[in-house]
Amino acid sequence: MKLLEDRILAEGAVRPGNVLKVDCFLNHQMDISLFMELGREFKRRFSDLDINKIVTIETSGIGIACIASLFFGNVPVVFAKKAQSINVDGPIYTTKIESYTHKRVYDVFVSQKFLGPDDRVLIIDDFLANGKSLEGLLEIIGASGASVEGIGIVIEKGFQVGGEIIRNRGIRLESLAIVDVLDADTGRIAFREDPWDVR
Amino acid sequence: MKLLEDRILAEGAVRPGNVLKVDCFLNHQMDISLFMELGREFKRRFSDLDINKIVTIETSGIGIACIASLFFGNVPVVFAKKAQSINVDGPIYTTKIESYTHKRVYDVFVSQKFLGPDDRVLIIDDFLANGKSLEGLLEIIGASGASVEGIGIVIEKGFQVGGEIIRNRGIRLESLAIVDVLDADTGRIAFREDPWDVR
Repeated sequence: MKLLEDRILAEGAVRPGNVLKVDCFLNHQMDISLFMELGREFKRRFSDLDINKIVTIETSGIGIACIASLFFGNVPVVFAKKAQSINVDGPIYTTKIESYTHKRVYDVFVSQKFLGPDDRVLIIDDFLANGKSLEGLLEIIGASGASVEGIGIVIEKGFQVGGEIIRNRGIRLESLAIVDVLDADTGRIAFREDPWDVR
Repeated sequence: MKLLEDRILAEGAVRPGNVLKVDCFLNHQMDISLFMELGREFKRRFSDLDINKIVTIETSGIGIACIASLFFGNVPVVFAKKAQSINVDGPIYTTKIESYTHKRVYDVFVSQKFLGPDDRVLIIDDFLANGKSLEGLLEIIGASGASVEGIGIVIEKGFQVGGEIIRNRGIRLESLAIVDVLDADTGRIAFREDPWDVR
């Protein structure tokens, strides 16, 4: 998605350890006009899907998922929670997710009330790197009996294994920008060619 | 806001310890159609404000703040982060916030890039109880030199002190529903009369 790639080039910053900082517009300050364009683009790419729920994981996916819902008939958005709350009661689906960013393992859960066999889910998240977070979500959704119709990612790190793992499972995955080069020494960012840009 | 009060009565549940569970529509599963009505109502109550930024705090405020932004000209939404990230660099405004729900103290921060003296802020959050979270946000925003034009809360627990503390500071605070009674034994929920319902 050229609009997104241009924004990453203009305002993104590369840090050692394959970190791409996009906190100016994506995951600390959030550009809602950009989010509207991301939501529109997810709908364009997934226009054939009949979904009734969007699932994401706290924290950075929430805003994007909520805005994206507007383009999918305002379907409910469920976010998987990192376990720390006393406000949980009733049965939950749960798994452990290792965070690349935070170097720790989280217990993550979704209340069983909010996912079941009748649900046709679109997963939305801001980043895809090693895929641990998505694999956790897939496990939770699988346990509920819901189907995953597609996965929409804003920025995929194409040089990490997550995208390949997910696609090899036969799951439909669309990333609006795939970063193939992140060079912290030179600051260079390069994107994989995007077939959707010419459709 | 009658629509919200009706929803709380229909789907909210009272738990011991003054806990009001509204995870069906507000803070685990999010009803985006309802969020649109909340955003519209915040705009109605704050129609005279000239804001250029919305500030919230992770996690549950983020979705509401993003949708509300649509009614305020798509102003950027900044969320204060709970400190755990290695993705932070550069100067930050920081404070400590004691979470009533999680019974612990968080370090919370906002990057200095995203708040400054030119900012006219509307704070949005899902709950107001003892006000610790809001006081932390006010401290951070104050340190940046930005002005707080208003605070919009979805559900205020009127029997806790937060609302009074904030209003006594002379800050304009609008809560879309103020719960005055939460009885875990009977499940009874009662709301303060809302002058905006008849305007």
